[in-house]
Amino acid sequence: ARTGHPEVIFGQGKTVRQVREVFRRLMKAHGRAMATRATPEMADAVKADFPEASYDPVSRLLNCGRAPRRLPGKVLVLCAGTSDIPVAEEAAGTAEWMGCRVERIYDVGVAGIDRLLAYREALRQAGVLIVVAGMEGALPSVVGGLVSRPVIAVPTSVGYGAHFQGLAALLSMLTSCASGVTVVNIDNGFGAGCAAAKIQQLVMEAREGEDLVP
Amino acid sequence: ARTGHPEVIFGQGKTVRQVREVFRRLMKAHGRAMATRATPEMADAVKADFPEASYDPVSRLLNCGRAPRRLPGKVLVLCAGTSDIPVAEEAAGTAEWMGCRVERIYDVGVAGIDRLLAYREALRQAGVLIVVAGMEGALPSVVGGLVSRPVIAVPTSVGYGAHFQGLAALLSMLTSCASGVTVVNIDNGFGAGCAAAKIQQLVMEAREGEDLVP
Amino acid sequence: ARTGHPEVIFGQGKTVRQVREVFRRLMKAHGRAMATRATPEMADAVKADFPEASYDPVSRLLNCGRAPRRLPGKVLVLCAGTSDIPVAEEAAGTAEWMGCRVERIYDVGVAGIDRLLAYREALRQAGVLIVVAGMEGALPSVVGGLVSRPVIAVPTSVGYGAHFQGLAALLSMLTSCASGVTVVNIDNGFGAGCAAAKIQQLVMEAREGEDLVP
Amino acid sequence: ARTGHPEVIFGQGKTVRQVREVFRRLMKAHGRAMATRATPEMADAVKADFPEASYDPVSRLLNCGRAPRRLPGKVLVLCAGTSDIPVAEEAAGTAEWMGCRVERIYDVGVAGIDRLLAYREALRQAGVLIVVAGMEGALPSVVGGLVSRPVIAVPTSVGYGAHFQGLAALLSMLTSCASGVTVVNIDNGFGAGCAAAKIQQLVMEAREGEDLVP
Amino acid sequence: ARTGHPEVIFGQGKTVRQVREVFRRLMKAHGRAMATRATPEMADAVKADFPEASYDPVSRLLNCGRAPRRLPGKVLVLCAGTSDIPVAEEAAGTAEWMGCRVERIYDVGVAGIDRLLAYREALRQAGVLIVVAGMEGALPSVVGGLVSRPVIAVPTSVGYGAHFQGLAALLSMLTSCASGVTVVNIDNGFGAGCAAAKIQQLVMEAREGEDLVP
Amino acid sequence: ARTGHPEVIFGQGKTVRQVREVFRRLMKAHGRAMATRATPEMADAVKADFPEASYDPVSRLLNCGRAPRRLPGKVLVLCAGTSDIPVAEEAAGTAEWMGCRVERIYDVGVAGIDRLLAYREALRQAGVLIVVAGMEGALPSVVGGLVSRPVIAVPTSVGYGAHFQGLAALLSMLTSCASGVTVVNIDNGFGAGCAAAKIQQLVMEAREGEDLVP
Amino acid sequence: ARTGHPEVIFGQGKTVRQVREVFRRLMKAHGRAMATRATPEMADAVKADFPEASYDPVSRLLNCGRAPRRLPGKVLVLCAGTSDIPVAEEAAGTAEWMGCRVERIYDVGVAGIDRLLAYREALRQAGVLIVVAGMEGALPSVVGGLVSRPVIAVPTSVGYGAHFQGLAALLSMLTSCASGVTVVNIDNGFGAGCAAAKIQQLVMEAREGEDLVP
Amino acid sequence: ARTGHPEVIFGQGKTVRQVREVFRRLMKAHGRAMATRATPEMADAVKADFPEASYDPVSRLLNCGRAPRRLPGKVLVLCAGTSDIPVAEEAAGTAEWMGCRVERIYDVGVAGIDRLLAYREALRQAGVLIVVAGMEGALPSVVGGLVSRPVIAVPTSVGYGAHFQGLAALLSMLTSCASGVTVVNIDNGFGAGCAAAKIQQLVMEAREGEDLVP
Ligand SMILES: Nc1ncnc2c1ncn2[C@@H]1O[C@H](COP(=O)(O)O)[C@@H](O)[C@H]1O
Ligand SMILES: Nc1ncnc2c1ncn2[C@@H]1O[C@H](COP(=O)(O)O)[C@@H](O)[C@H]1O
Ligand SMILES: Nc1ncnc2c1ncn2[C@@H]1O[C@H](COP(=O)(O)O)[C@@H](O)[C@H]1O
Ligand SMILES: Nc1ncnc2c1ncn2[C@@H]1O[C@H](COP(=O)(O)O)[C@@H](O)[C@H]1O
Ligand SMILES: [Mg+2]
Ligand SMILES: [Mg+2]
Ligand SMILES: [Mg+2]
Ligand SMILES: [Mg+2]
Ligand SMILES: [Mg+2]
Ligand SMILES: [Mg+2]
Ligand SMILES: [Mg+2]
Ligand SMILES: [Mg+2]
Repeated sequence: ARTGHPEVIFGQGKTVRQVREVFRRLMKAHGRAMATRATPEMADAVKADFPEASYDPVSRLLNCGRAPRRLPGKVLVLCAGTSDIPVAEEAAGTAEWMGCRVERIYDVGVAGIDRLLAYREALRQAGVLIVVAGMEGALPSVVGGLVSRPVIAVPTSVGYGAHFQGLAALLSMLTSCASGVTVVNIDNGFGAGCAAAKIQQLVMEAREGEDLVP
Repeated sequence: ARTGHPEVIFGQGKTVRQVREVFRRLMKAHGRAMATRATPEMADAVKADFPEASYDPVSRLLNCGRAPRRLPGKVLVLCAGTSDIPVAEEAAGTAEWMGCRVERIYDVGVAGIDRLLAYREALRQAGVLIVVAGMEGALPSVVGGLVSRPVIAVPTSVGYGAHFQGLAALLSMLTSCASGVTVVNIDNGFGAGCAAAKIQQLVMEAREGEDLVP
Repeated sequence: ARTGHPEVIFGQGKTVRQVREVFRRLMKAHGRAMATRATPEMADAVKADFPEASYDPVSRLLNCGRAPRRLPGKVLVLCAGTSDIPVAEEAAGTAEWMGCRVERIYDVGVAGIDRLLAYREALRQAGVLIVVAGMEGALPSVVGGLVSRPVIAVPTSVGYGAHFQGLAALLSMLTSCASGVTVVNIDNGFGAGCAAAKIQQLVMEAREGEDLVP
Repeated sequence: ARTGHPEVIFGQGKTVRQVREVFRRLMKAHGRAMATRATPEMADAVKADFPEASYDPVSRLLNCGRAPRRLPGKVLVLCAGTSDIPVAEEAAGTAEWMGCRVERIYDVGVAGIDRLLAYREALRQAGVLIVVAGMEGALPSVVGGLVSRPVIAVPTSVGYGAHFQGLAALLSMLTSCASGVTVVNIDNGFGAGCAAAKIQQLVMEAREGEDLVP
Repeated sequence: ARTGHPEVIFGQGKTVRQVREVFRRLMKAHGRAMATRATPEMADAVKADFPEASYDPVSRLLNCGRAPRRLPGKVLVLCAGTSDIPVAEEAAGTAEWMGCRVERIYDVGVAGIDRLLAYREALRQAGVLIVVAGMEGALPSVVGGLVSRPVIAVPTSVGYGAHFQGLAALLSMLTSCASGVTVVNIDNGFGAGCAAAKIQQLVMEAREGEDLVP
Repeated sequence: ARTGHPEVIFGQGKTVRQVREVFRRLMKAHGRAMATRATPEMADAVKADFPEASYDPVSRLLNCGRAPRRLPGKVLVLCAGTSDIPVAEEAAGTAEWMGCRVERIYDVGVAGIDRLLAYREALRQAGVLIVVAGMEGALPSVVGGLVSRPVIAVPTSVGYGAHFQGLAALLSMLTSCASGVTVVNIDNGFGAGCAAAKIQQLVMEAREGEDLVP
Repeated sequence: ARTGHPEVIFGQGKTVRQVREVFRRLMKAHGRAMATRATPEMADAVKADFPEASYDPVSRLLNCGRAPRRLPGKVLVLCAGTSDIPVAEEAAGTAEWMGCRVERIYDVGVAGIDRLLAYREALRQAGVLIVVAGMEGALPSVVGGLVSRPVIAVPTSVGYGAHFQGLAALLSMLTSCASGVTVVNIDNGFGAGCAAAKIQQLVMEAREGEDLVP
Repeated sequence: ARTGHPEVIFGQGKTVRQVREVFRRLMKAHGRAMATRATPEMADAVKADFPEASYDPVSRLLNCGRAPRRLPGKVLVLCAGTSDIPVAEEAAGTAEWMGCRVERIYDVGVAGIDRLLAYREALRQAGVLIVVAGMEGALPSVVGGLVSRPVIAVPTSVGYGAHFQGLAALLSMLTSCASGVTVVNIDNGFGAGCAAAKIQQLVMEAREGEDLVP
């Protein structure tokens, strides 16, 4: 709330009815709302109430309205494989809904390092980077070594066998040899987008008045 | 390096001789250096070369020189119990060495919530918060709900029994219900301090010239 | 049995037929019976035999009859999020069936600490507290620090990623820094309700005759 | 504090000096103090300040003073093997320091069930039971089936091989088929003693005035 | 083969067609055959070939023919709860098919110790005991303390929460404080029945001629 | 006790004094005694009381006296590598102390299968086989396929890396594809020797009188 | 790509449409393509575009075209049980598609060691061996002791209970006492086939010109 | 033995005396010998017998004599950090002792990707690559994407916190998105060196006579 954003609904495990009701309550209180992990059925129910709501089946984000102000700087969302895209989009969509300008560079896994390196310039121009990867979760380490900006790593449950639904990628990111990488939970694109927005919010407020953040 | 900071030496598991040599090399190249998890013996060896080096036995940080510029805003380091202080000091000392202004609020564990709440004002004035906790690792969730700024959580290995050397606190922080909390590895005060400094660096550069971070 | 309560049927994994038969047997022997984790189909089958039986789809408790005596004091059931309500209701319903007076305070997770603190007075008036939480499982630590009464913590499987179906919350509660918190298994609302009732039973008997509990 | 007991010092991992200082502070504030997991060196240091302090090398409890009032009823502490005695004594000594009357029945493991059953009468006369066991941790299930009173189970790290420092006993107790058993962390005799004392405190207050616990 | 028994088909994960074919092959070679974890569909297919085959939906054993000789002594199969019965029946049925005389005592979990103790005499008359239990897996420890015969423990996946599909019971049985208990895999009733039959086979051969087992 | 054997002392974690006292008590009651995991210091203390006691530094068994009767048949103890010998000797020495005739075949790991196969005849003449292995724990599967007698598998903590102190070997043995193999805890040579002796005891009693084992 | 092979599509978790599109793209670029873990629906869609494509429902490999050159030497694929065949076929089919000559020896699990030993000659004539096994995963150790060639071990998820979906077999293979065995992930037949092909490719190039691999 | 190499002594956990004896036996039988994980004391004892033996304190390899023939091609050993060097040297020294030509490129971790990329040419000229890394274990994925030769990955126990003594790096390497990477156990430099030598041996024999490997 203090961020200026209403609480976000975690759709997973909720009934259509529950999501619809909380959505209504949030719209009434804040004039905008968002649900993550939303199903098409939830989207239909919410659109019946708010025809201007929009739903994206890839990120499974369902939202209506947006942050009143655009934040400065660029949030760059990268992901390693195409199967990581839904999580990357959850991160990107969340940051956008909170007012960030977002760019995406997808399918740049470390086993094809030259594809990633072709984007060196774009990496350096980002203010905050969200790096999404499943499998061995190595991308944040490489990216963290190429930039001096905050890097937020998101492990995904994409993998098989001894991957244990994302545990391998999570442990990998926590022990990254790139210094200053921080990590969110497995598949938690929302959390990463939210953390990036908080950084950009701080940047904006700092730019506007020195006394806000003494 | 792109951050303007030389690589930091991870002292743990290294010999006195190895640390001394890398320290010399870094001093020569950058005019300043830092080692983490340093022993008193490492400190003596380095001070023989650089009498102006300083060593803190609590954080086990050994450094010489400092970031040339002071960063704006305040990094607030909190910890839950007195046993968490060494990790909190590693975070605080790292951020300071990288140019941040740091404040500390220690021993404000959630089982005595009123002690923490007495600092509401201080919490709100911080630009970035580093929250260090062992045991059940609950402090970042409470703090994350009280502020709108970036919160970096550091689990510590302080605990017993089913704590598994910090795993309980780590899992707890990763599944925090406060949105946008990011996490570093167990006892990784260095990583948290470093991530906070990167955010403050971004803030400073953003304040100085819009074109740096477009 | 020695508690004056008949054995309770664990409905999960049983067939409708098995539940119906055991229910009949218990009703015959004790004049009342309860099944946990009951399905609507089990409820229908039992109601065919005992029209006065009642079924609650949230807690999934199916019961008929009740403890003959009301126990003194108040059992307070708290939960962190709305997804924890089914487990909280299993605890509450169990304690009620065993004769306790129960109050509920729901959706008071630690990331919004002020909501919880608004209930300080109610917390202090409770005789026994059952604290239900998923995610990081931090609520019992905070509550345990606010009251001097027995606190029974119930981790729930509500969470995602590195939560491991409730393991994160369980470990968190076991390593709580609030002293004297005891814990039951993941999602085991029944066990918590039952333990609370045993405490209230002891209180009642102690009040009535010193010689019962010498 | 609301229990009328000062905070207890967790001696493990602290220096002699730290324990001595906190002990002094607590004695000054409350007139009594206790440290758990204390070493003989800590005991010597504290006794230099408070000659009336007493130290027990088995439970490793170091205390001075005691709860002003004796609580009604009996806390019964049982343990399975002789190696579990230090944890059992930590539980017993904690409860005693908090004012409880404590009885002990040791070395009654389930592999020699008749030894345990010889104590049926004593089991039934207890108000609260603390059951300590390592290895397969089965004792609380058997005891829980013999009494109708609150049972607090304490797993110990006594075991070998696939015991994983008490994890086997912990999981065993959490999945106990005896209803209403609650569990504390591995080797946490202190926590169990403390929980038992809170129950006896409730019993006492309930006996004295109905209006205290409405 | 050397036991005089044909290889047994593990039905789980096989197609109806595969089971039917291997069954035919075994019947041709040995004149008898058995499949475990068989589905009703597998039973129908096999009965189409061998009308004298019999299928038990509880144990999911499908067999035709039997060991030519009856083994001496009694195999006693115990189980803790009614949910453990399918595994207990797999053990019992396997031992019977291999020629053993089997007795069953079910629903004698340790939380109701007197029910078990009512069978002391039967326990002592058994040559080999198979003890099946889920939840905390404590039954083999108690039984192992009451008899001097070989005890084979079978953990089941019956449990919830921190039971981890039988892991809690497995670890419990491996660390049993009753000496000489041996353990098979989770839900592996077949393995236990087979091990018991090998012991009885040894007994029989030893009785018949000293030179067979010198 | 019902086996005719006094309880065996688990020396690990006990003091010299404790072992000496229990040893005395057992000698007085039974005329013989054994301690496992005994240190040389324990051996010296016990020998001061009982000069006829004997201590083996490899198996760490310390005993005095022996089972009054020799059991029929042969217990064969195999192990995979030389590092497994201490555990194998604990098994062998235990079985011998309980009256068994024991043969040993050591260093026959599966990576050199021909060495094992050279002993086919010896394998077939054994009544009960104890198979000890660390690393991948594969030996019991191979042996179990070569004989029709009871096979007791003992995983050892010999291994490195992802062996997790014997867990790899334990899991391997539990999922053995040889039917009827039973398993004891990691490094539990005592348990295996004891289980083998119980089988041989049954064989002996069965041979002597049919009415003992009806 | 540098191997001369186009990237292989991992079909699992992809839509029919996605597989079809990537397949088209690869065919266009390389004139051949392969998808693993393909469903019959994917096969139909791809065959609509490329009628010469072939699909094998056992290995679930879907491919079109093949490596232009045949590699020298023989890749031998062994597996322990019939349930391991799908993984073994994924390995075999992958190696064949990459140009290898492949031989198969299936159902030679270690519990029937003589069946395996009947193939000694074939084992020795192989250039590279891929050994696939579930359950206790012991086959690579035995095979590794019989040959002097590179052995690639593939654990499968075939097992039950404490097998943990292939973890037991994986740990077993990693701690194999046969020296020089390397391991791929659980069920990763593709990876093993690919590694074998890389070795054979090296052999071929080395034979043709010494200067290629100096 | 079939490789033409005598068995290698695993020094860890052995006594000086045991290593000395086995070394003598191997020297007598084969004219050369090697021990891994050897201590300086073992080296002194062996050098007393064989003054020409050499010991390297970094790799802890102790050997005497060498493979009679030099193998063709180049084995390239890479490692990520300086703490990984002991394991890398164990791999390199083992391969050399078995006749390989070895090159080393150390301290090329993925967080400084440009350092690694500077060696592109050297990577491509290698016949077999051994890639050693601790922390997040990402190096094999990047290297595997740059070359078409066999890559053997070695996870090390270098790391902290949620690294679990190398488990994080091991899981990471097993789920590598680079195809055809094979893995050995944590810190198993010996196994990797041995596997590389077997590949080079195959290459050599294949070059010399087509009929050896038909
Ligand atoms: N206390 C610490 N905790 C975690 N990582 C650290 C710490 N200190 C230094 N590092 C990291 O370790 C790297 C240096 O590792 P090394 O080359 O082994 O000295 C630095 O660049 C940091 O990223
Ligand atoms: N033996 C013990 N086991 C678990 N918790 C303890 C123990 N002794 C003290 N504590 C808890 O630790 C808290 C004090 O921790 P500290 O401030 O580190 O001394 C006390 O309030 C108790 O809740
Ligand atoms: N069955 C398989 N098991 C493991 N890895 C595979 C398998 N099939 C394909 N791959 C790998 O997955 C990559 C393609 O992944 P994707 O881009 O998701 O299709 C390929 O380059 C292979 O390295
Ligand atoms: N450093 C090492 N890491 C892993 N395995 C090794 C190592 N050194 C030797 N070995 C293996 O250990 C076997 C010898 O074991 P041992 O008989 O206990 O000396 C050799 O045949 C090798 O397979
Ligand atoms: Mg890709
Ligand atoms: Mg404190
Ligand atoms: Mg809420
Ligand atoms: Mg005892
Ligand atoms: Mg029952
Ligand atoms: Mg050997
Ligand atoms: Mg087979
Ligand atoms: Mg480095």
